[in-house]
Amino acid sequence: MRDVAVIGVGLIKWGELWEKSLRMMFAEAALNAIKDSGVDHVDSMYVGCMTSGMFVDQEHLGALCADYAGLAPIPAARTESACASGGVAMKMGFMEVASGMSDIVLVGGVEKMTDVDGAGATYALAAAADQEYEVYNGVTFPGLYAMMARAHMQKYGTTRKQMAHVPVKSHDNGLLNPYAQYQMKLTVDQVISAVKVADPLTILDCSPITDGAAAVILCPLTMAKKLKKRAVKISGIGHATDTIALHQRKDITWLEACERSAQAAYKMAGVKPADIDLAEVHDCFSISEIMAIEALGFVEKGKGGPATEAGETAIGGRIPINTSGGLKSKGHPVGATGVAQICEITTQLRGEAGPRQVKGAKCGLTQNMGGTCASSLVHILEVA
Amino acid sequence: MRDVAVIGVGLIKWGELWEKSLRMMFAEAALNAIKDSGVDHVDSMYVGCMTSGMFVDQEHLGALCADYAGLAPIPAARTESACASGGVAMKMGFMEVASGMSDIVLVGGVEKMTDVDGAGATYALAAAADQEYEVYNGVTFPGLYAMMARAHMQKYGTTRKQMAHVPVKSHDNGLLNPYAQYQMKLTVDQVISAVKVADPLTILDCSPITDGAAAVILCPLTMAKKLKKRAVKISGIGHATDTIALHQRKDITWLEACERSAQAAYKMAGVKPADIDLAEVHDCFSISEIMAIEALGFVEKGKGGPATEAGETAIGGRIPINTSGGLKSKGHPVGATGVAQICEITTQLRGEAGPRQVKGAKCGLTQNMGGTCASSLVHILEVA
Repeated sequence: MRDVAVIGVGLIKWGELWEKSLRMMFAEAALNAIKDSGVDHVDSMYVGCMTSGMFVDQEHLGALCADYAGLAPIPAARTESACASGGVAMKMGFMEVASGMSDIVLVGGVEKMTDVDGAGATYALAAAADQEYEVYNGVTFPGLYAMMARAHMQKYGTTRKQMAHVPVKSHDNGLLNPYAQYQMKLTVDQVISAVKVADPLTILDCSPITDGAAAVILCPLTMAKKLKKRAVKISGIGHATDTIALHQRKDITWLEACERSAQAAYKMAGVKPADIDLAEVHDCFSISEIMAIEALGFVEKGKGGPATEAGETAIGGRIPINTSGGLKSKGHPVGATGVAQICEITTQLRGEAGPRQVKGAKCGLTQNMGGTCASSLVHILEVA
Repeated sequence: MRDVAVIGVGLIKWGELWEKSLRMMFAEAALNAIKDSGVDHVDSMYVGCMTSGMFVDQEHLGALCADYAGLAPIPAARTESACASGGVAMKMGFMEVASGMSDIVLVGGVEKMTDVDGAGATYALAAAADQEYEVYNGVTFPGLYAMMARAHMQKYGTTRKQMAHVPVKSHDNGLLNPYAQYQMKLTVDQVISAVKVADPLTILDCSPITDGAAAVILCPLTMAKKLKKRAVKISGIGHATDTIALHQRKDITWLEACERSAQAAYKMAGVKPADIDLAEVHDCFSISEIMAIEALGFVEKGKGGPATEAGETAIGGRIPINTSGGLKSKGHPVGATGVAQICEITTQLRGEAGPRQVKGAKCGLTQNMGGTCASSLVHILEVA
């Protein structure tokens, strides 16, 4: 298996992009990544996207995105694992380079979420849950994560205020990221007193609906070392699943697939949680980040809330989490999220993160999940 | 890169399966493949599916199908390239084994097409075309392929009668396949005089709407050789794209992505068209098979019609095509098709195809395409 490196990152400013179609967003991010990498061609391509069919009546994104990025006739395919679709695309790109099938692979992610007709974005996103046992009975994702939050509060004493510190920190970081969708400061009081979506979660605990795309370029590490920019190696990948329905889990306060995928990635990379300098985790709701940092081993079980309140996960803290602003402030175009996480860690490991730079960062982690963590992908990146 | 083998195949009887949900069909095919292979565990899984979101409001099929096949918490993800989704899943499974990421990988495909509400199956399938430039203007796939057929008739003199020989042969073969959806004999006159869908194509030129699933088990060839069944090696894979919209092609009578993917697969396997003993090709419409056998190099450009009429592609002919019954008779649950093609070739190379066996078959090919061949995947399999 060949070592694989990230040699280019491409983002666009995310938001409600009424003026940009799915194909335009993808092409813009892809061309930004190609430009950043300096490569003169691409051998193969993946695009992570959750549900362009339900959002904009368009499937077959591999061919569509390759065509409009000017990359056809190269091999191109879409991957889907709900909100972890981008993380899966990364794994495919990694395998294509690692196996020797291709040398230069573009991995992108995209979601066009604000053009929905019909029952709207919440309905489309619910396709990540179990339609037959969850959605048909009326539950949607804010409701599912609210149950997880309530159970976590009950079991570990996690407080409403501790949870509010997650979006407050995310927005502090997002203010430093020019690509973030919501660049505004939040206070704990604002989060707690905002309109309730599903008790105990308010609207400011929930990641937004976003149009966006992201892309990276991968190649063999040996090739990457000959380029000008600092080479960033993908040293570990972990991928695991869980029951798709929340009610079938033993313990809804613990993200078992996250833990499994993290353990697999740590093993592959030969590192432990204490070796990680910073991480991008899947904070689709405030409680998700608290549960993710526990399952990743950054804090003890049940201590995600107090650690966040104490500032351990802020830039300058013990283990900075979501320096990009996370899903909450940066936005969450679901298929793009897993790829954008790689963009942020790569930017940090190159030392190019400007005002949000984590000093001396050598090893970073991304955690991207689908549904209520029925899918989880963890990638570990290191300065090579 | 490790050599990869197919060690198990799993099918279910396809049709209008009102009594079976998507997850049930997948689990049944997956368990059949596991049983056929004799393995006691699976390390990772892929599922090809085109548009379960638009058909049954369900995405996140990796986690769902792993869960209901009893395979969670293994890594599991969905691939999508329209009707080539199954072919892409095969490529992913191949790369996962070839790279050394996993040893035993299950590759499945599934589509539940008969439970559609809203605008129906034709609307959902149109998501494989260019929504902005084709579908919004009213064209659907029968219309697109009808234009290709008309152009082929004009340019090469292909006749209506020659095209009718494709479904006639498919149904002759499907009568010999217990898994086929439509097991009934057709005549050339029946095909030509059937109700018109899009001139010159009649309803009997069009592959049907089907519920179905298929699965195979892959492992390293070294491991496969220690098992009881005849080892079948995947010796070549090719994958290419084209413009998603038909009107942007130089020549709509030629499947350029099919040709490119075939050339890549032939090169990787070190074989040429004349070395292929039989093939499963993507006959979504009668004209598709004629164009595919030309682009694959089995017949000269423009000679697909006369070769079919002359019986060259029948069982016992020079190059038997679609011994399974093809998409037309066997059925076309779009995400499952590319995987079922691998099942048929594996069964033939094992010498287990019963009354439809191609005698002495040592090398077979599958060609699976999405849209109007905006995506094409070719796999070459050989007795190891």
